[in-house]
Amino acid sequence: MRQIVELEKAYRLLNHGPTVLISSACAGKENVMAAAWTMPLDFSPPKVAIVVDRNTYTRQLIEASGEFVINIPPVAMAQLTVAVGDCSGRECDKFSHFHLGKLDASQLQVPLVDGCIGWLECRLLREPHTQQTYDLLLGEVVAAWADDRVFSHGHWHFPSDDLRTIHHVAGGHFFQIGDEVSTEHTAD
Amino acid sequence: MRQIVELEKAYRLLNHGPTVLISSACAGKENVMAAAWTMPLDFSPPKVAIVVDRNTYTRQLIEASGEFVINIPPVAMAQLTVAVGDCSGRECDKFSHFHLGKLDASQLQVPLVDGCIGWLECRLLREPHTQQTYDLLLGEVVAAWADDRVFSHGHWHFPSDDLRTIHHVAGGHFFQIGDEVSTEHTAD
Repeated sequence: MRQIVELEKAYRLLNHGPTVLISSACAGKENVMAAAWTMPLDFSPPKVAIVVDRNTYTRQLIEASGEFVINIPPVAMAQLTVAVGDCSGRECDKFSHFHLGKLDASQLQVPLVDGCIGWLECRLLREPHTQQTYDLLLGEVVAAWADDRVFSHGHWHFPSDDLRTIHHVAGGHFFQIGDEVSTEHTAD
Repeated sequence: MRQIVELEKAYRLLNHGPTVLISSACAGKENVMAAAWTMPLDFSPPKVAIVVDRNTYTRQLIEASGEFVINIPPVAMAQLTVAVGDCSGRECDKFSHFHLGKLDASQLQVPLVDGCIGWLECRLLREPHTQQTYDLLLGEVVAAWADDRVFSHGHWHFPSDDLRTIHHVAGGHFFQIGDEVSTEHTAD
């Protein structure tokens, strides 16, 4: 079930480096792309950094609307994550083509991708030089959600492999996240 | 054994989101910190983005020297990764205090941390506004290395759990990277 993640713990959805889907929308057009180059940028208010190539339709939509959503897909969506990265939203409506379900965002006009296990609703922090020079987009997280089967009370817990996060290396090769590492020194 | 990683494949060391150690040096002073907020930023020339708080000694050293190294620790160094994140290099020489071995970089004056499984030698791309506003540092990768027991020919392969990459969530809690996910669509 989709539950709210407190904003101050939203970074924990991305901290371990999952590959994500970025959804965007503007003036009735919607799109989704795959992205491995994302990271948290600040705790409070929570911020994120993502890399979105200047030639993508997603970039056009995000810069026009000032909004995007980071969706975290599980292993069950790995194949789909490769597929949506292999075509352009200029050529097809990916939500329709890939039969992707949509969930309403709470703060934005951008749809969340159904079937994912975590979501960060983000407003673009406009930094034209950074965007133009490096294809680097910064955003403030204004709402966050997680599937409580895998993330609750600020912690990930994976009940089955199909629900684990995926971590892309190159060319469609992913690792799933594995077991917890035990260290003596842990805190909440 | 430490082997050169071709620059065009250096991004693959970071693409799956491992937590890293950042080493730095300037005028005889050296330091190392833990960082989960790192990502590739470009393929060729390879670039990276890292978040380094303005109050850290590492930040001072990197901005003075214009150099840093991203070291990728394995599970066997998880405890150490927490420990080096818990004290400041202003108070102690962490290499000495934690008995960290050093390897020579090929392009920089910054030591690589021995025992790690991947290394990216980076030159700071000075962007004062981005650094000051977001604690976000960009770098160009000028050399990359990997332990060929776990990374060769552009691919990760983990022979044992102790050599897997670690992925921090919060408060000393890590996951190790897990198994490969099979998708139909893969390429080199």
